[in-house]
Amino acid sequence: MGNVAQCCKDYWCRPKNTNVRISLPAVCVVWQTAMIILFGVFIRYDDESDTHWVEHRKHENLSDIENDFYFRYPSFQDVHVMIFVGFGFLMTFLKRYSFGGVGFNFLIASFGLQWALLMQGWFHALDHTTGKIYIGVENLINADFCVAGCLIAYGALLGKVSPVQLMVITLFGITLFAVEEHIILSLLHCRDAGGSMVIHTFGGYYGLAISWVLYRPNLHQSKRLNGSNYHSDVFAMIGTLYLWMFWPSFNSAITDHGDGQHRAAINTYLALASTVLTTYAVSSLSAHRGKLDMVHIQNATLAGGVAMGTAAEFMIQPYGALIVGFCCGLISTLGYLVFSPFMEKVLKIQDTCGVHNLHAMPGVIGGFVGAIVAAAATEDVYGKEGLINTFDFEGAFANRTVGTQGGFQAAGTCVAIAFGIVGGAAVGIILRLPIWGDPADDNCFDDEVYWELPEDEESLPPILEYNNHMVTKNPDVSESNFSVEQS
Amino acid sequence: MGNVAQCCKDYWCRPKNTNVRISLPAVCVVWQTAMIILFGVFIRYDDESDTHWVEHRKHENLSDIENDFYFRYPSFQDVHVMIFVGFGFLMTFLKRYSFGGVGFNFLIASFGLQWALLMQGWFHALDHTTGKIYIGVENLINADFCVAGCLIAYGALLGKVSPVQLMVITLFGITLFAVEEHIILSLLHCRDAGGSMVIHTFGGYYGLAISWVLYRPNLHQSKRLNGSNYHSDVFAMIGTLYLWMFWPSFNSAITDHGDGQHRAAINTYLALASTVLTTYAVSSLSAHRGKLDMVHIQNATLAGGVAMGTAAEFMIQPYGALIVGFCCGLISTLGYLVFSPFMEKVLKIQDTCGVHNLHAMPGVIGGFVGAIVAAAATEDVYGKEGLINTFDFEGAFANRTVGTQGGFQAAGTCVAIAFGIVGGAAVGIILRLPIWGDPADDNCFDDEVYWELPEDEESLPPILEYNNHMVTKNPDVSESNFSVEQS
Amino acid sequence: MGNVAQCCKDYWCRPKNTNVRISLPAVCVVWQTAMIILFGVFIRYDDESDTHWVEHRKHENLSDIENDFYFRYPSFQDVHVMIFVGFGFLMTFLKRYSFGGVGFNFLIASFGLQWALLMQGWFHALDHTTGKIYIGVENLINADFCVAGCLIAYGALLGKVSPVQLMVITLFGITLFAVEEHIILSLLHCRDAGGSMVIHTFGGYYGLAISWVLYRPNLHQSKRLNGSNYHSDVFAMIGTLYLWMFWPSFNSAITDHGDGQHRAAINTYLALASTVLTTYAVSSLSAHRGKLDMVHIQNATLAGGVAMGTAAEFMIQPYGALIVGFCCGLISTLGYLVFSPFMEKVLKIQDTCGVHNLHAMPGVIGGFVGAIVAAAATEDVYGKEGLINTFDFEGAFANRTVGTQGGFQAAGTCVAIAFGIVGGAAVGIILRLPIWGDPADDNCFDDEVYWELPEDEESLPPILEYNNHMVTKNPDVSESNFSVEQS
Repeated sequence: MGNVAQCCKDYWCRPKNTNVRISLPAVCVVWQTAMIILFGVFIRYDDESDTHWVEHRKHENLSDIENDFYFRYPSFQDVHVMIFVGFGFLMTFLKRYSFGGVGFNFLIASFGLQWALLMQGWFHALDHTTGKIYIGVENLINADFCVAGCLIAYGALLGKVSPVQLMVITLFGITLFAVEEHIILSLLHCRDAGGSMVIHTFGGYYGLAISWVLYRPNLHQSKRLNGSNYHSDVFAMIGTLYLWMFWPSFNSAITDHGDGQHRAAINTYLALASTVLTTYAVSSLSAHRGKLDMVHIQNATLAGGVAMGTAAEFMIQPYGALIVGFCCGLISTLGYLVFSPFMEKVLKIQDTCGVHNLHAMPGVIGGFVGAIVAAAATEDVYGKEGLINTFDFEGAFANRTVGTQGGFQAAGTCVAIAFGIVGGAAVGIILRLPIWGDPADDNCFDDEVYWELPEDEESLPPILEYNNHMVTKNPDVSESNFSVEQS
Repeated sequence: MGNVAQCCKDYWCRPKNTNVRISLPAVCVVWQTAMIILFGVFIRYDDESDTHWVEHRKHENLSDIENDFYFRYPSFQDVHVMIFVGFGFLMTFLKRYSFGGVGFNFLIASFGLQWALLMQGWFHALDHTTGKIYIGVENLINADFCVAGCLIAYGALLGKVSPVQLMVITLFGITLFAVEEHIILSLLHCRDAGGSMVIHTFGGYYGLAISWVLYRPNLHQSKRLNGSNYHSDVFAMIGTLYLWMFWPSFNSAITDHGDGQHRAAINTYLALASTVLTTYAVSSLSAHRGKLDMVHIQNATLAGGVAMGTAAEFMIQPYGALIVGFCCGLISTLGYLVFSPFMEKVLKIQDTCGVHNLHAMPGVIGGFVGAIVAAAATEDVYGKEGLINTFDFEGAFANRTVGTQGGFQAAGTCVAIAFGIVGGAAVGIILRLPIWGDPADDNCFDDEVYWELPEDEESLPPILEYNNHMVTKNPDVSESNFSVEQS
Repeated sequence: MGNVAQCCKDYWCRPKNTNVRISLPAVCVVWQTAMIILFGVFIRYDDESDTHWVEHRKHENLSDIENDFYFRYPSFQDVHVMIFVGFGFLMTFLKRYSFGGVGFNFLIASFGLQWALLMQGWFHALDHTTGKIYIGVENLINADFCVAGCLIAYGALLGKVSPVQLMVITLFGITLFAVEEHIILSLLHCRDAGGSMVIHTFGGYYGLAISWVLYRPNLHQSKRLNGSNYHSDVFAMIGTLYLWMFWPSFNSAITDHGDGQHRAAINTYLALASTVLTTYAVSSLSAHRGKLDMVHIQNATLAGGVAMGTAAEFMIQPYGALIVGFCCGLISTLGYLVFSPFMEKVLKIQDTCGVHNLHAMPGVIGGFVGAIVAAAATEDVYGKEGLINTFDFEGAFANRTVGTQGGFQAAGTCVAIAFGIVGGAAVGIILRLPIWGDPADDNCFDDEVYWELPEDEESLPPILEYNNHMVTKNPDVSESNFSVEQS
């Protein structure tokens, strides 16, 4: 018995091996093959992307321009940019993890969107007569949304996990997302156009729970690399700005045609503008001589978009959007100043990008703002038809009151939190298996581990020159020095 | 009396204090609060973004796709990218002011667009029955346009002003813009789709006049930082290219549905292509061994878009657009080579980004090109209805001739110049108050002043320190060292 | 006779002179002037961008939103971004050729699109009654496509040619492109929406053939500069991601309204996602400890988009798109690992960006995939009308069978290869004339040759040399220096 325990302990505590030469290719090829097979069995074009559209169109007396493609494709492309450039470049801020930030983001998003088309298809778009899922541009947007949840989780884990672990996180994350989304949107009949609940709350807590399980007590050994430099901060601003600019498209991409998309875009635009001012205010107020901190500017300025995710399509009014943005800028920046250090020290949660301040907390706020605005809706403001359209009070839900809707919206937020925390903890335990090739505590935040790096004169020379110099005087020291650098 | 004078002089000439820890947060929070109150009183959704759209649509027998959102939202997003990434990254070219370039651009644009919605609303969209301003996507585009004027002014002042000053410049700039725009577009009934007059001419002269009042005789003390490095120049190319690519959207964003947007996009596309070739030609011709200068490539290539701002929606014909672009590339590049040094030495105007060459001068050209093309319009070319549509010869202006229109267009350009110079001078005087936290002459173009900078192995200080250190010990060596660095 | 030969030899072998101060401005100004004249003679607005649209629209009973502008402008802007930011930044990966990568791309694309409007207009859009070419947004897209062919060729030549040579390559490249496109699309009546054949196959082989003729046996003398550094790799990722994200717009930009655009976007989106996974797999499998190589990630991930260029608008089905992407990721990455070194050593073709792996080979695959999918089309899957629409079986081609169509598609691919190789070889011979200002073998990949570079402290070596030098003379100083640098 003791032997087995010892054996287990040895197995779990053996030195980290970051060689992913077998595991990463295997996961990529096997999973991609599975996708091909499943797509072959299940996925087909929908009415609007099939060559039969020409007949369908004549039958319905539509113009070509009324194909859903023209309603949603520009928003889709904006969302696509947010996923790959927005999230990707936001994560280049670490001085020596830019490749990993943008590169692994690229990998897991590309896998995730395929798996999301299947998972979301099975839950929302499966035709039970034919057994097929019919996809169009709205499905592509939803797949990108689904991926966003996993990329948020990656933000909490940036620099501390291997690409193989990230693939596992994505596989389970998408699966959990689809179930949670089904419960919130279909069973509870919540409205959540921009995903404050289903994307940001879920994604944030999912990442934080994983990070909590994977807590690294000796992470301070990588402290030298856990920070930015001047140019990596400018790269990260590319990510920030694309997320910020295109968030109106994110929140309006799948809302109702016409006024729904129009209003969601306006509300998000205003909320984000307001967030920027309070973020700069708190950042300046908190520092010596009023100096601004790039971490706040890169992240907290986006909190208003997160928090408008649910209410963007409601009649929150322009000043309502400004108020939401105002509060989120304050709270998110204070989160970076106060709550993040607390979380790391007391709760033992290491959150590299501060996703708690940018996604989880504003997501919860957004969920409850949505609940309140829904509960406060009146036929006077929305119009009879407008109210039905906005909240989809049709079919089984034709008799639901706005008060009840508000209650269900709040419940939806709680479901998202629960799924994030429980799901994340479970996935975290799986990730503790010592087979995934994650880096040692003194080796985090370093692209050297998973990337062939260019020989880079910009960083090394002072030290190398120094070594040269040392060689003549004291070869031993130099060599030890060098070996440390290489490790 | 002498005592008071002395007192005043002391007050004005006391050493610069760049601490903005109270002023910046105060301005941000107070102004944002004011925005919320004013939005609450004045701003509501318009017909096309309100939930009553569904009734409106049925009443007017429209399809959802005929909501203005689908005509303008893609262009809006392109313009939005120009404002935040285009202008923002164009101003990252300074080696140690990239944070300030992109970061302060972000701050003032976010404030400015809110204030612009109000100011432009009061002048152009106020419903006198209800006392409300009803906004839709076209208002968002106009707000972004209005902000562009202030960002152009920032270009002239880059690195020499504090964020608090920038907020003041934006507050007054937006206000002046709205008045000037009202005079030019409503009273003079000019056409100015892409804002050669109202945006670029006004914004350029506004910034130059401020810079003239804030003239710093000892700015050469910051000379070491008033330049680019290799990577900051590449960052700036991101800004250049996004401005260049999306300028067709800028000039067509608020033109007439249908042919108006279509034609404006084509004309701008062609003018910009032509500008690139003459910019490269002059840049190469002016330098030793034909070497190109990044300053010209980053800026002068855009002049064609500025100069097409007024005439883009007219029937200038494709070759006309090419000619405008051809001339602007020449003139703008020559501006950088000849006029900028003259302006700095003789006129005492320090223009960090050369906005005179990129915005003010091409804007004036664009205004007069617009006047000429308008005056030359014929019913033969435009068609009867086309002529009325293009120049909006309706209502009180139904009997205006194209000749008169040309005269008014020219007058509009002069109004824009006047507003820019007088307004800028007045705002400049306000900014000379010693309360705004602007940097000292030897401290300009340095992010260190307003930003927490990462500890950056790549940065200069260690080496400069070393030089300093050497000076005390061995001046000769130090000097030779310095000369090596300069080579 | 011997004297003449000697004379010739001296002339051809004289030392390289990279001074382009006369030639570059002359080419730019003369060619731009020619463009203005030719545009004046030939180019006018089409029905949808002319002020007569209002009459045309009423006559055809159309809504403004049915102007082609609203069908294609968002895709056009995406394509425009791919051309200038996508291709431009992809070519910034070299550590000291970022200016040349993005800057010369900007120059030749701006010239090329004007020349393309003329060349393509003469072949496809010339109205023989009036002798005019009428242009609208679709022509702009096609001009951008045409330019893409030349930019691909530039990829093979990056760092080894002068800007004047690039202008020549573009002039002939666009000309050849228009002829080849006329043969493939009009005479052979092939379908090639995203240009697997006409753009990528032609462009790839055109560049490779030029590179073969311009083979530099001593290119290893520039080896120190033929590589990336950390930040230049991150810049290149901007290019990669914009190409990757907007490729669905590229392949769908000129397909049929409605389902055609919709389906092409979906297929390309899926193919690209699949490519990413196999690229990462092969890259990891090929390296020590599974480390990923940025060259593969930046390039091979795009191969799926290239290969879907022809079949994107066909009913290849979602799983078919995934299979194409899967194979191309494999093949393209293997190309970088195996075929590129072989090509350089044995075939004497130096291909800086590896365009053979990214464009030529996947383009050929795409051409044949298109042929197979076309040949396999059935009325059952496409519907009667759908089949006619998709393959344009109208007029003279009304009786063509899908089998025949498949044969012609395959023939079209061969035409593209032939035009690329023969045309490239011919242009290469012209470029060997010693008058173009190209750099010497030990001077390639260096922006210093054609650009005024900023004094750049980041390129430390000169100073470090000095330190070394100091070490020998005065070790104490050196050590103090070191400690300061480390601080």
